[in-house]
Parts: sequence; C-alpha cells; structure tokens
Amino acid sequence: MPSQDSYTVVALDAMGGDYAPANVVAGAVDAMREAGGRFGIALVGRRDAIESALGGRACPDGCTIAHASEVITMDDAPTAALKTKRDSSISIGLGMVREGTAHAFVSAGNTGAVFSASTLILGRLEGVGRPTIGTLIPTAVKPCLLLDAGANVDCRPDHLFEFGVMGSVFMTTMQGRTAPRVGLLNIGEEKSKGGEVVQEAYARLAASSLNFAGNVEGRDVLTGVVDVVVCDGFVGNVLLKFGESVPGFLKARFTDLAGRSLGGKLVGLVARNSLRSVMKELDYQEYGGVPVLGVRGVSIIGHGGSTPKAIKNMIFRAEEMVARRLPANIQDAIKKQHA
Amino acid sequence: MPSQDSYTVVALDAMGGDYAPANVVAGAVDAMREAGGRFGIALVGRRDAIESALGGRACPDGCTIAHASEVITMDDAPTAALKTKRDSSISIGLGMVREGTAHAFVSAGNTGAVFSASTLILGRLEGVGRPTIGTLIPTAVKPCLLLDAGANVDCRPDHLFEFGVMGSVFMTTMQGRTAPRVGLLNIGEEKSKGGEVVQEAYARLAASSLNFAGNVEGRDVLTGVVDVVVCDGFVGNVLLKFGESVPGFLKARFTDLAGRSLGGKLVGLVARNSLRSVMKELDYQEYGGVPVLGVRGVSIIGHGGSTPKAIKNMIFRAEEMVARRLPANIQDAIKKQHA
Repeated sequence: MPSQDSYTVVALDAMGGDYAPANVVAGAVDAMREAGGRFGIALVGRRDAIESALGGRACPDGCTIAHASEVITMDDAPTAALKTKRDSSISIGLGMVREGTAHAFVSAGNTGAVFSASTLILGRLEGVGRPTIGTLIPTAVKPCLLLDAGANVDCRPDHLFEFGVMGSVFMTTMQGRTAPRVGLLNIGEEKSKGGEVVQEAYARLAASSLNFAGNVEGRDVLTGVVDVVVCDGFVGNVLLKFGESVPGFLKARFTDLAGRSLGGKLVGLVARNSLRSVMKELDYQEYGGVPVLGVRGVSIIGHGGSTPKAIKNMIFRAEEMVARRLPANIQDAIKKQHA
Repeated sequence: MPSQDSYTVVALDAMGGDYAPANVVAGAVDAMREAGGRFGIALVGRRDAIESALGGRACPDGCTIAHASEVITMDDAPTAALKTKRDSSISIGLGMVREGTAHAFVSAGNTGAVFSASTLILGRLEGVGRPTIGTLIPTAVKPCLLLDAGANVDCRPDHLFEFGVMGSVFMTTMQGRTAPRVGLLNIGEEKSKGGEVVQEAYARLAASSLNFAGNVEGRDVLTGVVDVVVCDGFVGNVLLKFGESVPGFLKARFTDLAGRSLGGKLVGLVARNSLRSVMKELDYQEYGGVPVLGVRGVSIIGHGGSTPKAIKNMIFRAEEMVARRLPANIQDAIKKQHA
C-alpha cells in the first residue's frame, strides 16, 4: 500500500451505476463543495460523457478527469469484461490507486467486476486468503456489519475467521466500536450446530483474541446483539436481499389492510408513511456503499441505483477510510491473528 | 405405509412444546369438538400429566390416552435422547403410526428429535435420500413453501432436487396448486450463479418434468413469484428466523419514531396496530406446523410455543394429509422423477 500522509485523491468511477455518469458527476460536484479543498476527486471515465454530464460547467475545484475509453456495464460478466476491456474506468481507477496517484476507489458499477478488479489490481493483503465485502445494516441499537455480503459463495473455516478479523477492525476503525462483538451466523447457539465448515470456524474464532460472542441465529441479526455478523457470501447475499424486500411487502399489506373505508384508508396511509420514515432512516445510501476488505487499498462498491447523495456519502466514506488507515489496520490485525 | 381407507387416528404428542401438556390437551379437546367424530386422537404421554391437564374432565369422545413414560425435552440432544428415552411420547407416537394403530403424528416438541424419529421410525420413502421439513410462508399473493427449513444443513444436488419434487407435490396435494412453480434460491438469476452444489441442482431441476422457474433471489421470496423455494437447511433456517424477527424490529422503530408528542404517539400506535394486524394475518399458527416430507407416513412438527389453536390446526392439517394421501403422492412423484 502506498503511504498516504497528505492530500488524498478519490478515484471515482464516473461510468458506474444505472444513472452514470449523471448521478456520479452530480455527487462529485456536491462532495467537492462540501469538502472545501480538504481532498480531491479524479472522475474516471469517458471524457466526453463526463463533460456532457457537467453540462458545460467547468470541473469543480479539486476535481480532475482521468480518461478511460471503455465501460464495463452492469450486465458484463466480471472476469471476461476485465480481460477484454482493459481500458475500463474500473481498471484505470484502481490502477491509479495501485500507482499512488489516487488513494481510494469508489464505484456504483458492476459489483462482481469491481470486487474482482480490486483483488487483482490492488492485490490481497499479506495473510488474507479471501478479500470480502461487508454491508452495514441497521439493528435495534447501532448498525452492525454483515460479511461476506455476496462475494465469496464457498468459504473455508479460515476465510470465515478472516472475515471476523476484518469486520472487527472495520467496526473499530470506522465506527469507533471498542472490542466489537463478533457473531458467527448459524442455525443454533450451540457450537455443535451447523456443518463442518461453520463448526471449524467457530473453533478458530473462539481460540482467537477477537471478542467472539459465539453463534448468532437469523433472529438475532436485527437485535444488535453483535457488531459483526460472519457468514459465507451465499447466506449473506440471500439474507440481505430478503431484508431489502420486506418493506415493499409490508407496504402492500398495509394497503390491502386499509380497505376502502375512509378510516381504513387513513390508517393505511399513516402505517405506510411510518414505514417509509423508518426505512428512510435505515437507508443504505446513508451508509455509503460496501467496502472491499482485505485488499491493498481502499475500494468501495455502491448500489447500482445510487443517487448523487449516495455517491457523495461514498466519497466521504472513502476519504475517511484512507485517513484512518483502514487497510493498514486490517494488515496489522491479520498478522497478529496469524502470529 | 399402512393403507388408510377408513377412520383416521392422529397420534398427538401430549408432552411436546413449551406449554405441554396444557396447550396440547386443550387443542385436542377443541379439535374433537369441531371434528364431530370424523376422526380420532390418541394423546400420547404420561397418563397422570394428561389426566391432570384434563382437570378431572373425561377424555372427550374420539380421544384416547396412549401412555408413554418418558419425555424428551426441548433441551435434549435429539439423537442421544431417542436412544436413552425409548419410551418417550415421540417414539411411542411414531411407533403407532408405523404399526398402523395411528395414521399421523403431531408434535410441538423438540424439532430435531421429532425429525430424526420420523426418519428412523417411519423410514424414508423409496428413492428419497433425505427427508425434509418445509415451512409455508406468506407472500404478496399466496403462501409459498420454503424447504429445507433447517433439517438438512449440508445438501447434495440430489437432495435439493428431491426437495423440489416433494415441495411441488405438497403444494398440489395440500394447497391445490396446479403445476407449482419451483424456484431454486440463489444469489443471482443466471444458472452459473452460486456454488457447485447449487449449479448442479439447477441442472437437475431444469432437466426434470417439474415446473422449474429457475433461480430466485432473496428479494423474490415474498413476491410469490414461485410456489416452492428450494434451499439447503442452513440458508432456509437463517432466512426464516430472520423473517420472524422483522416485525418486532419494526415495531420498536415505530415506537422510537413516534416520539413524545401526542400526534407522534397516535401515529406510532396506528403503525404498530397495522403491523400487528398484518402479522396476525400471516401468523404461522394458521398454517399449522411444518410437515416432515419424504417419510413413510404423516408427521407434523409445531412451534414450541404452540397455542391450543395452533395444536388444533395441526391436528386438522394432519388428518387432511392422511385423507389426501400426501406420502403416497410423494412416493409416486419420486419414482416418476427417478424413472
């Protein structure tokens, strides 16, 4: 990892996401206004598209354009796209981080491609078998980090253990948690629960210096009983997507429930609005994307539908990760755990 | 499977559940009142405890007591308990089904013990590698069956395929669905998604005569896009328990949201009540427990906290499964798919 003691530049994938480059450029403009020169942005992508999104305005102070001629779309197969589109905004942006001309990468583009490219171009931290992505989710108390969120479908016990280490460092470094409680997602509390992989992961976590809280079940995630929930990417992805679908489902049921009477309609309206307020409060956009952990640098992947506000939040989050030396802290912790 | 063309007897585990035998006996009394002599119940358990729960009343018409001296508790390790407590209500009740003196077994007791005993005592249907349990869950349209719900943590492609077959038969036989749509729970739509096991299961399902709808993601479950969701028991258990925890989480957030003003309190009250109404409508108790599928007989496992109403519903559901020959239908379908 290049050292970073002075001016930070965030390489921003201008071509990533369903509303790129418009939303990305708008988020960058907002971020630069708020940042007041504290750090800079490199908008990576096709110069003409970026300039068109700027609508004739000049690039704001602190913001530069780094041209990349190719675009990896949301539908591209990640590995193939990285091979055939070598001049993509994802490859160019991550290359800048590797070379030290930028210090973090942010993209709302193809998750698989950004994850793979982060691993391939930045490289894994020493001792990390599998880089991972983690998602902050709301709980009854404070947000917890669930990882792996979908990058690693099949995991060995070592990988799950490393997710625990990396998640713990993330919650300390980025959320100020002291001795974060790490839970292993399982189908029961007893250490004999689950398959072989999960049982071995339990043993490794229990033998470590992490603040291991044992197994947690599906019903425990939202209570906030732990700060970090460790699982493989298959389970994590299914759980996160299921969770995202609940509000829409309930909203429709509230409508059904309300029926046709005026009183019923009022009740339905109040219930739906309350739900909307709660969900807004829990909005992923506030959390600013999912970090790639375990690579030699800062990389954040945003939702394909990211708004300018979400892009702006990710930029600030990325700058914070650089300032707080997240990758170096993870490297230290991994070395210590493997020692 | 013993043939069953006349009077059905449901063997009911009087000692199973957190409120046994009180809730179980109360549910049996209610069921016999409603059944009007159409079928009978054998209350299986300690005679003294059952008589005490009857509070001096005589056993209702159609209801008998089958004494079993031992009780497997919710905390017992399933396999060990089945070995050491050979005269448990679970073993005796399932033995009656095997011998043909009863035709279905219902228990709100130790899930693992009831599942294992159902497999061991009733035996697997021919061609079934792994019996399974399925849970009916609400969707935006009609309930769908998710299986495996937690019995089989590690599954081979064959097992997942069989779950699809058995789930499909269940939905046709018990819910009247024509050509039920079967979905494979995965982390993306493409058949290349997921690990090896899931990919092979996809191929098997796609090559079968089932109405296979391809992969479904976590976000699709509640939309009702499929009638049957196939997954391994680890994912299924985590998902179901997570889902159960959502209403409590939202209820607390509605309260927080309401704040202290009178208007806010009213809004919070309306939102919480709406949520309660929706959840009540979706209450698992209405669905009547989870069936054990793939064994030579009818066996239903209820929630440990089952109310008398839940017990009553499970008894009726069990009688229906016997009348509609669910195990025989599953046997036919498995033979056909393997042919």
